[in-house]
Amino acid sequence: MNADRAEVCDLLAEYGALIDMARFDEWLDLFAEKCRYQIVPRENFDRGLPAALVFCDSRAMLEDRIRALREANKYNIHTDRHVIGLPRIVDAGLTVEAPFAVFQTDQEGETRLFATGLYRDRLEVFGQRLKIRDKLVLLDSFAVPTLLATPL
Amino acid sequence: MNADRAEVCDLLAEYGALIDMARFDEWLDLFAEKCRYQIVPRENFDRGLPAALVFCDSRAMLEDRIRALREANKYNIHTDRHVIGLPRIVDAGLTVEAPFAVFQTDQEGETRLFATGLYRDRLEVFGQRLKIRDKLVLLDSFAVPTLLATPL
Amino acid sequence: MNADRAEVCDLLAEYGALIDMARFDEWLDLFAEKCRYQIVPRENFDRGLPAALVFCDSRAMLEDRIRALREANKYNIHTDRHVIGLPRIVDAGLTVEAPFAVFQTDQEGETRLFATGLYRDRLEVFGQRLKIRDKLVLLDSFAVPTLLATPL
Repeated sequence: MNADRAEVCDLLAEYGALIDMARFDEWLDLFAEKCRYQIVPRENFDRGLPAALVFCDSRAMLEDRIRALREANKYNIHTDRHVIGLPRIVDAGLTVEAPFAVFQTDQEGETRLFATGLYRDRLEVFGQRLKIRDKLVLLDSFAVPTLLATPL
Repeated sequence: MNADRAEVCDLLAEYGALIDMARFDEWLDLFAEKCRYQIVPRENFDRGLPAALVFCDSRAMLEDRIRALREANKYNIHTDRHVIGLPRIVDAGLTVEAPFAVFQTDQEGETRLFATGLYRDRLEVFGQRLKIRDKLVLLDSFAVPTLLATPL
Repeated sequence: MNADRAEVCDLLAEYGALIDMARFDEWLDLFAEKCRYQIVPRENFDRGLPAALVFCDSRAMLEDRIRALREANKYNIHTDRHVIGLPRIVDAGLTVEAPFAVFQTDQEGETRLFATGLYRDRLEVFGQRLKIRDKLVLLDSFAVPTLLATPL
């Protein structure tokens, strides 16, 4: 089945917006039951090295991850802002790539660039909805500070 | 009436581009006669605190605001660049949310991150055109330097 | 002939993505045979000054340029990330403007804002494909560090 361009764009936008609002249950619900979520430094990826910074190959694992992040964030209070750039939509809308920049604002009100990278998503149509089956977050840096503090 | 996705995207893009070109009369014309424009730190918004950094509830008030900014900018010469991310378009296209990052470049040619946040717009269809009825700029920081210097 | 909005967005997204992946041959192929590519500081442009930082008025010249960049980058190892914001699509889709931010990550893993600006593209339809006929990169700063190191 094909996916509509508008739906793909909305899914990406929602993905970022839900993290930024810390609405993680709804964020989890964007993923299919059987899903994979990885954060890999692009340098590793380009060299074919398997080492991921984060690797979850089921939604249950992703839920655990989010629980841990929430706990950690009690000690690292900040807000996130995802700015997702124009996506490339290929493969009948079921594969999409989009560059992103994530900014963080701390309790003193200082906003800083946190990370940049590229999403490579494989999507699936479930009834009326589009879900994420496989999300690869290619991170431009291998040295993201306090990486644990936020999903990307 | 419904709004077309392409028109909504064009309106958002035009909104940022007109500020960046300092074409403020055309920018004002993107708003409906009866309009509201607010800049609110997201922290205040999330806590239900009403304090806005900027609050204009008519286009006349917004015009005054812009006049004041222009005067102030004679002493703070810079240029802006709005990068608006993928939007979420809901409610038949008449409600839209989009994350943004604004960068400023000073007279020495240094470009810096100025502010990040989220637009929450309510739009209206006027004849052939889409106009902004209510714009809420949720600012990630409560401590934006020289905030007065630019519309967001 | 007209251009489809989705194709225009895909072309812009591909433009950025191919630079970021350093796939410059495919990037060159996004340009028409007869093309022009310029990088101009917006201050110069606004004042009608002709001085471009980069000026190529054929694809052959652009190819030379890329060859030189590749050589230079052996000594300035970094990766790029283009985040391209919502575009304004005008003139039956054959003229498009889009704001951008480019981030660079160095070998130590530090990611920094590199440049911001605006693309002004004139496109052409070649058979089934859309190509860039004229690309004007309006750069917000006249003082981009190590500008030579990357196409914008």
